[in-house]
Amino acid sequence: MSTPRRIKIKDRPSPDNVLVVGSVAYDSIVTPHESGEKILGGSASYACLAASYFAPPHIVGVVGHDFRDRDRKKLAKRGIDLSGLQTDETGRTFAWRGRYHENYNRRDTEDLQLNVFERFNPTLSAAQRATPYVMLGNIRPELQLSVLDQLDAPKFIVADTIDIWIETKRELFAQVMRRADLLVVNDTESAKLTGETNVIIAGRHLRAHGCRTVIIKKGEHGSVLFHEDGLFSLPAFPVTELRDPTGAGDSFAGALLGYIAATGKSDFATLRQAMLYGTAVASLTVEAFSTDRLAKAGCSEIKARRKQLLQMTKA
Amino acid sequence: MSTPRRIKIKDRPSPDNVLVVGSVAYDSIVTPHESGEKILGGSASYACLAASYFAPPHIVGVVGHDFRDRDRKKLAKRGIDLSGLQTDETGRTFAWRGRYHENYNRRDTEDLQLNVFERFNPTLSAAQRATPYVMLGNIRPELQLSVLDQLDAPKFIVADTIDIWIETKRELFAQVMRRADLLVVNDTESAKLTGETNVIIAGRHLRAHGCRTVIIKKGEHGSVLFHEDGLFSLPAFPVTELRDPTGAGDSFAGALLGYIAATGKSDFATLRQAMLYGTAVASLTVEAFSTDRLAKAGCSEIKARRKQLLQMTKA
Repeated sequence: MSTPRRIKIKDRPSPDNVLVVGSVAYDSIVTPHESGEKILGGSASYACLAASYFAPPHIVGVVGHDFRDRDRKKLAKRGIDLSGLQTDETGRTFAWRGRYHENYNRRDTEDLQLNVFERFNPTLSAAQRATPYVMLGNIRPELQLSVLDQLDAPKFIVADTIDIWIETKRELFAQVMRRADLLVVNDTESAKLTGETNVIIAGRHLRAHGCRTVIIKKGEHGSVLFHEDGLFSLPAFPVTELRDPTGAGDSFAGALLGYIAATGKSDFATLRQAMLYGTAVASLTVEAFSTDRLAKAGCSEIKARRKQLLQMTKA
Repeated sequence: MSTPRRIKIKDRPSPDNVLVVGSVAYDSIVTPHESGEKILGGSASYACLAASYFAPPHIVGVVGHDFRDRDRKKLAKRGIDLSGLQTDETGRTFAWRGRYHENYNRRDTEDLQLNVFERFNPTLSAAQRATPYVMLGNIRPELQLSVLDQLDAPKFIVADTIDIWIETKRELFAQVMRRADLLVVNDTESAKLTGETNVIIAGRHLRAHGCRTVIIKKGEHGSVLFHEDGLFSLPAFPVTELRDPTGAGDSFAGALLGYIAATGKSDFATLRQAMLYGTAVASLTVEAFSTDRLAKAGCSEIKARRKQLLQMTKA
């Protein structure tokens, strides 16, 4: 298979590899306007597809006997290495059913079947262990720690989580945060982690007590980076065709890490650029159900959105 | 009395004058942490104090027999011309009682006494009619139109409103919008005006059907400018000492118009700079009850916040 198109980084022809550990899921989603049944989702699917526009991703996850060949092909087509995607024939793929309410600002989980995900325990191959750029998607903190323990010499680790692990495994996730280079959470999660609803206070608190660098995502209101060299605030891309917000955060983090791997740098200036790309890619994700728009995006489209974002934030 | 300190604009030693028509009120405010009784408020008070850091404001409004001398002095001290502030001895000053809920995201009006404001009908003096830069603060649209009719040759008009006039005087406010150069509203108001909760769609709709240039304020999430030359999105200043959000929007608009009057320009680039200053000044307003912090802010403090805002938005 030919190499998928990637966004070229000046003076650096060959990007480093990215490893993404997380969920691969079948989502059933209802929005105020439409619905989708059993569509490809999960943190690792979104993050890998997003990262693939910048660097070659290795996916680490598990699916069940019902996982469709066309979904495997969708991931492979974007150059994602699937050797770490285990198939557990004894059960079904992790399934999530969610409903978005008016304005998409709130969603309810209506059903959640862990299925094969419940027994998932990632064991990395030698190649995976050697991957320098790693995203710990929202899986159980024990598994995130187990992946950290297996890594040879990671250069940059991004950690994400969801509400349930903050509520039930706070101390374990605190260990993950301390060992990561960058924590990427949304404003609900940062409030749960710190008890602070003010995003600025929460971000500073997380830097002091959690992870050395923090990004708090605010959905349609953009994101904020808390770094030792300063604060950076970026609005969301002006999306007017919102169809399904699922996976926006994972796409953001995946593209962000992909850009870091592509440049081989992770300083303040690089992280700001990475957020522009993450925001551009996430804006494509939400314009369609599942990974449809994300998987088919063109590099020129991503670059155009990044440029538009840069223009609309330049005072 | 000596001229109050103003922020100097390069190559333009003398700012033009600003006229602000709006309410002068006594507010009683309860927040989750503290409360204030009968404190100086109102759209015109906040906007004039904010504008005074850039240009000399003329206030046009009405107060009752209970208006305190110290509040008059507070305004005069910042160089605000009070000759248009009528005193109606037959009644009391407009009074508003509001309560902010958890996180300050929502507020309820618990009591509202129009008092002398009910009979207010602004008649401009010759000097006021000749003022080139005008803010129509949130008063009845009929009064905004009456002020517009009295102006000689305005150069730039900013219009604001509140929910109640959108609900009860939609067509009259539409006339105000069409005659203004810039509409400044918050996201709740833009949604009420257009039926669109997506800020980007609402802003574009307002430009097509309302006012040629539009700013939508999103509180802690910043503001967006919709201009024929492009879109500009600016985050809020990272306030961590929020005490009373009342007047933030009026301070933003007042400082914005003051800057425009100080520069004598109102192109896209000037409006972007004006938003930086508006955001910086509004961030001071919310750090204290009433106009206390706003009235006492220093020019260097405002400039420092503008600079900080510029740094944290630079990709």
